[in-house]
Amino acid sequence: MLDKMTPSAQALVPFVSVAEMMALIHGIGLEQALVELAARIEADFRRWPAFDKTPRVASHSQIGVIELMPTSDGRHYAFKYVNGHPGNTRDGLQTVTAFGVLSSVATGYPLLITEMTLLTALRTAAMSAVATRWLAAPGARVAALIGNGAQSEFQALALRAVCGIDTVRLFDTDPRATAKCARNLAGRGLRVVPCDSVEAAVERAEVITTCTADKRNAVVLHDNLVGAGVHINAIGGDCPGKTELAPGLVSRAKVFVEYEPQTRIEGEIQQMPADHPVTELWRVIDGQAPGRGGPAQVTLFDGVGFAIEDFSALTWLHERLGAGGVPLDLLADPDDPRDLFGMLMRAQP
Amino acid sequence: MLDKMTPSAQALVPFVSVAEMMALIHGIGLEQALVELAARIEADFRRWPAFDKTPRVASHSQIGVIELMPTSDGRHYAFKYVNGHPGNTRDGLQTVTAFGVLSSVATGYPLLITEMTLLTALRTAAMSAVATRWLAAPGARVAALIGNGAQSEFQALALRAVCGIDTVRLFDTDPRATAKCARNLAGRGLRVVPCDSVEAAVERAEVITTCTADKRNAVVLHDNLVGAGVHINAIGGDCPGKTELAPGLVSRAKVFVEYEPQTRIEGEIQQMPADHPVTELWRVIDGQAPGRGGPAQVTLFDGVGFAIEDFSALTWLHERLGAGGVPLDLLADPDDPRDLFGMLMRAQP
Repeated sequence: MLDKMTPSAQALVPFVSVAEMMALIHGIGLEQALVELAARIEADFRRWPAFDKTPRVASHSQIGVIELMPTSDGRHYAFKYVNGHPGNTRDGLQTVTAFGVLSSVATGYPLLITEMTLLTALRTAAMSAVATRWLAAPGARVAALIGNGAQSEFQALALRAVCGIDTVRLFDTDPRATAKCARNLAGRGLRVVPCDSVEAAVERAEVITTCTADKRNAVVLHDNLVGAGVHINAIGGDCPGKTELAPGLVSRAKVFVEYEPQTRIEGEIQQMPADHPVTELWRVIDGQAPGRGGPAQVTLFDGVGFAIEDFSALTWLHERLGAGGVPLDLLADPDDPRDLFGMLMRAQP
Repeated sequence: MLDKMTPSAQALVPFVSVAEMMALIHGIGLEQALVELAARIEADFRRWPAFDKTPRVASHSQIGVIELMPTSDGRHYAFKYVNGHPGNTRDGLQTVTAFGVLSSVATGYPLLITEMTLLTALRTAAMSAVATRWLAAPGARVAALIGNGAQSEFQALALRAVCGIDTVRLFDTDPRATAKCARNLAGRGLRVVPCDSVEAAVERAEVITTCTADKRNAVVLHDNLVGAGVHINAIGGDCPGKTELAPGLVSRAKVFVEYEPQTRIEGEIQQMPADHPVTELWRVIDGQAPGRGGPAQVTLFDGVGFAIEDFSALTWLHERLGAGGVPLDLLADPDDPRDLFGMLMRAQP
């Protein structure tokens, strides 16, 4: 490449590939990464009013959705691109893939571009663990995981690392998924109990996490299965027409959400009247609202995934990445900003 | 890299760097690229109702803006990231930088990621040329360019290549910008006339393009300078509080816009009542609405830049790129889609 075509450092944007993300996570340690992400999410939730918040910008088709999730705290700007195509697995493709960008608000220049499929799995698990830490009965040790797909192991390990869960009880309508999850979790300091029904899985569970992938209004968890004092993380119901819980269970629980306007559209509370009472979780973390009302109360974290969690993950990555990443020549950078044309012409072969 | 970490072809997204974009443009020829982009924009404007349209998603700060501009035709999904930071040039940075992504609606997978600072300059010039072709008086040969910054040479060459303009008359409040533009346009088949006032530049001009960068309500072009039959492309006024034309001139002209809801907020018609009549240009191109009303009418293309133009540019690039681009390992792609965790663990050092 000729010297006149070499871009300045500011025009080069570090790129974090899937391979580099995996190496980074192994370098830090997966559980340590989950603990750090949970702390980062809590810190950002404590300064919730500092963020620009909009519901995600979704482009729906008959077979899927592509979404952009932007937010900013006035210093950093972040957005995530994420798709959801349930039919993709038939063709050997992922249902959900994601990538993200972190930028400087001061200049508008991107600071990094990164894979976010893995990073989203980590931040989603860290988010459930944060909700569990604030809402579950003190001393909870047994969790049930209903749905043993791509998210399940991350959920289990975050509950262990952040909340002290020592036992996970697994159920999936596909026993192969449960076997895969149990195999992956072996030797990681958890007692793993594969179960052959939802009923068996939730027995004595103090925390229940539902993370199924069906894109419809399903009843993964019936009302009569959930005893007093249980905390539920409902993670899989995350778009219009996709829910996991029986309406009676949602009515009975005290409901906590990330960002109310988005969860009204996408969460379990789709099934409830528009004025069904909910508490935004950041208010609990910031001490502005009570969490669990007592030992018998059923608490529900109606998680749909919000842009601020991706922001937390991207700023965490930016710090942890240091000088890593492959520099991409993404931004045109003429010596004279008004002479883009001259830059193009000087590059003529 | 170990074989188990090698991603499948579908997980690799081609990246078009600034250097590769410049090489591609030179390979095609700049004017040929502008002609092809103009044709692509016209073709997409003819099928306007097929597109998902939303105003851009803007994140404003006191010193700039970061925007996402998504759209889809049900087959492809495209978005552009673009910033606008007028103070950036003080620090040797670009006021505007951009990158873009084209995806498959069928799978949600990105098909390419590309620099878009250069590509936006090309599509903006092609867009002005399309408007000029449909709205200017037949046989127009003389254009004035008010504002001789980064856009100006592209505008001039698109008017030449697409509309047969043979003379450009240049004016900028900074004579160095005019000198730069004249130098860059030398030997490109245009008669180039540097002028020392707006008055001199618009003399005998049949087309006037304003492309200044000031972020305020300025009057670049006064009403009394514009004679009967002139076509104006007002390109620089493209965000709230940024306009270029005298209100009397906007009132007198027949106004054409890209997407009315966005232009009401960002265009010259900010200065007009909310019901000031406008015509969306696609309706003229598709034969649904008349364009120029007669030889004496002043026509105004109030261009702000719309997502469909970026879509046209990205789909054009995708075809023209062929097997080009540097493959980026952007998308996590486990062999078993439900086993993201297993993929991560197999990458353990």
